[in-house]
Amino acid sequence: MKWCRFQTADGPSYGIIEGDNVIQVSGDPIRGTYERTSNSQPLSDARLLVPVIPPTFYAAGINFREHVAEMAAKRGEEPQYPDAADVGYRANNALVADGEAIVVPSDAHEQLQYEGELVVIIGKQCRNVSEEEALDYVFGYTIGNDVSERHWQRNDRTMWRGKNADTFKPMGPWIVTDGVDPEDCEVRIVLNGKFISKYNMSGAIFGVKHYISRMSKYLTLYPGDVIWMGTDGAPENMKHGDVINIEVDGIGTLSNPVVWEK
Amino acid sequence: MKWCRFQTADGPSYGIIEGDNVIQVSGDPIRGTYERTSNSQPLSDARLLVPVIPPTFYAAGINFREHVAEMAAKRGEEPQYPDAADVGYRANNALVADGEAIVVPSDAHEQLQYEGELVVIIGKQCRNVSEEEALDYVFGYTIGNDVSERHWQRNDRTMWRGKNADTFKPMGPWIVTDGVDPEDCEVRIVLNGKFISKYNMSGAIFGVKHYISRMSKYLTLYPGDVIWMGTDGAPENMKHGDVINIEVDGIGTLSNPVVWEK
Repeated sequence: MKWCRFQTADGPSYGIIEGDNVIQVSGDPIRGTYERTSNSQPLSDARLLVPVIPPTFYAAGINFREHVAEMAAKRGEEPQYPDAADVGYRANNALVADGEAIVVPSDAHEQLQYEGELVVIIGKQCRNVSEEEALDYVFGYTIGNDVSERHWQRNDRTMWRGKNADTFKPMGPWIVTDGVDPEDCEVRIVLNGKFISKYNMSGAIFGVKHYISRMSKYLTLYPGDVIWMGTDGAPENMKHGDVINIEVDGIGTLSNPVVWEK
Repeated sequence: MKWCRFQTADGPSYGIIEGDNVIQVSGDPIRGTYERTSNSQPLSDARLLVPVIPPTFYAAGINFREHVAEMAAKRGEEPQYPDAADVGYRANNALVADGEAIVVPSDAHEQLQYEGELVVIIGKQCRNVSEEEALDYVFGYTIGNDVSERHWQRNDRTMWRGKNADTFKPMGPWIVTDGVDPEDCEVRIVLNGKFISKYNMSGAIFGVKHYISRMSKYLTLYPGDVIWMGTDGAPENMKHGDVINIEVDGIGTLSNPVVWEK
């Protein structure tokens, strides 16, 4: 199934995408139960929202060897690969939906970069799950753009504005529950209509199953929690007026314009 | 006013604490409106819950000079003081209420420590607020215990289990909206009934007003967001069977037993 969250006259609602239409549902398909309503509209008319507001927003961060090596080379340093799947955090204030602008603070520096990522959405509460059963607790998958201002990322003590300024976390456009292999799917970067790079999730240092299993040894994962799986390669800078698309096999395209505040 | 969140037969509810009683309200006093109901019960009979589940869970972290110096000395390192109010994150999975156990994973190391902290709860959405107007956006204050497993904190790449294992973030017991000066109140640590240490919020490197103002330059704060303000001093280790109390002037006492998993 393909799920979206979209704006209605009565507020946000979940919807099922079938062909070119959105069928509104009542309830919450991720955290509870839902029922189809008789309301439907063309997908092209729907104002899509961030597909889920997570109780906790996890990010695998450094999880691809080439990304680690290329980013270290840019800084003139030796690469340091993680030796364990230590998950980090991002912040809900920064979430924006497909199509919404990445609004860059006026004092941001030139190295403002995309990071195209697969996003895992948890569907069932779990603690202490094995790698073999980990995917049974997944609701579905969407796409994230872990927008990063590298000067702040390097020089601030934390990721608060380098990664989590308002609008720095586009996520969407929708959630796909079937047909995505989270450990073998391709992620492609397209900037202003031009193909830039691609990578496959099979290159991850630690895969989705491993992350879920290891995290659940110490913490409870809840329905709606998201895990952003990290990115590969060395991203390019984004400028005012750019449009950045992240494509993931079996999911679709997350597209956002870049607006630099004056 | 003194607000709590407590368990009822119909699920969690907010309540007003007046004297020794809790008056149940409908609605949400932090995010919307509320009405008093005719239900009340003795506070001593109420099962208190975490007083707010934050959309984003901020933590000021390193924010007191003595804490920085003493923790560095323990590691045999030179202290490094932060030169800006860079806020970090904690995770909702780790929250527990007053009275609930801090359950320590069986493979945790000996240096399992409390950090008693003032917690700020945002009451109104804000962006770009001055220090002068910052407190106008605060709903109230509560108490947090930023439980930390120092071996994991030092050796993992992130704070995920060193700070955010399930039950490592006691918060409560309630929220006080008046009579607390967040930049001049005393925080006291009492372990197993014995006074251990105290500090005053006036010793913070960056105060509440400064944090709110600086954060809001880059991000929107939302009703229910919490900011844990950091701790002073050098905490002691906690063992199985300990009871750790954090007292804050004008708020009350957050008390939690420590249970080490076998």
